[in-house]
Amino acid sequence: MTKRILGIDPGLLHTGWAIIESAGSTRKYIASGVILPKKTGELAERLAIIFNGVTELCKKFEPDEASMEITFVNKNPQTTLILGHARAAAMVAISVQNIPVFEYEPNRIKKILTGGGHADKTAVDKMVRILLPGANPKTPDESDAIAIALAHANTTQLQRFIS
Amino acid sequence: MTKRILGIDPGLLHTGWAIIESAGSTRKYIASGVILPKKTGELAERLAIIFNGVTELCKKFEPDEASMEITFVNKNPQTTLILGHARAAAMVAISVQNIPVFEYEPNRIKKILTGGGHADKTAVDKMVRILLPGANPKTPDESDAIAIALAHANTTQLQRFIS
Repeated sequence: MTKRILGIDPGLLHTGWAIIESAGSTRKYIASGVILPKKTGELAERLAIIFNGVTELCKKFEPDEASMEITFVNKNPQTTLILGHARAAAMVAISVQNIPVFEYEPNRIKKILTGGGHADKTAVDKMVRILLPGANPKTPDESDAIAIALAHANTTQLQRFIS
Repeated sequence: MTKRILGIDPGLLHTGWAIIESAGSTRKYIASGVILPKKTGELAERLAIIFNGVTELCKKFEPDEASMEITFVNKNPQTTLILGHARAAAMVAISVQNIPVFEYEPNRIKKILTGGGHADKTAVDKMVRILLPGANPKTPDESDAIAIALAHANTTQLQRFIS
């Protein structure tokens, strides 16, 4: 059974996205890109750009499932709070269309793709290109979104294998 | 000119809301209540309940403007991060309908209503009932939502007076 997965790497400046197809052990690159809310302007308007962008992606590509990173509070809690807003805007756009959203810890995504939980962005990007021929991400956000989609595909394949 | 204002006090368990009308120095209570996402379940689904609830309010009451508190990171940053998700779900529901969202610091709202920036919930609730005959909030979230709407009405009235 072929499953279409939407990977999202949310951010108030750049929200990376990727669509891949997964069937058994086969992965196929469909599309990827970045939603760019304007740099200035009210928070509410910028969230609306993310929401509308993700809504459009769901309508255009009709993914079966979506995958996102879990956000943890880091050294700058105020920045994390704003990231949480961007994340929620993307998440709710998917959820209101009844597409299930799966959440993964960042280290788990890195581990699934590279074997190590602390791989840097370059290592993740390299694995994305190896695992998904045709993918040519132009920014780290796009690369991360593909990684998030791939991690979900590999996790659910594994779960099917075990059960 | 009569202006209809939507006040929102977001939360993942209880999202308070209020609709008031403001014309010059007159304030009129229209409606208020609480959106209650289910206590268990995926974050994405709970955010969708808040989003759908606020969307419905906007369609039913057609507010001209909306008012919300600014969230700051408090002693528990992880809780604040989750609150940020609920806040964004409500905010984006308003914003995608092209209703402007005004944001106020919590202390400013208290000061506008009670004269003091550190008033407790009981003092805010008391002022809400004095300033807005007809309002009979049943929970603190509902009372706060009315306070947030009232603070916006009073601020914009003041701004018109100054300019």
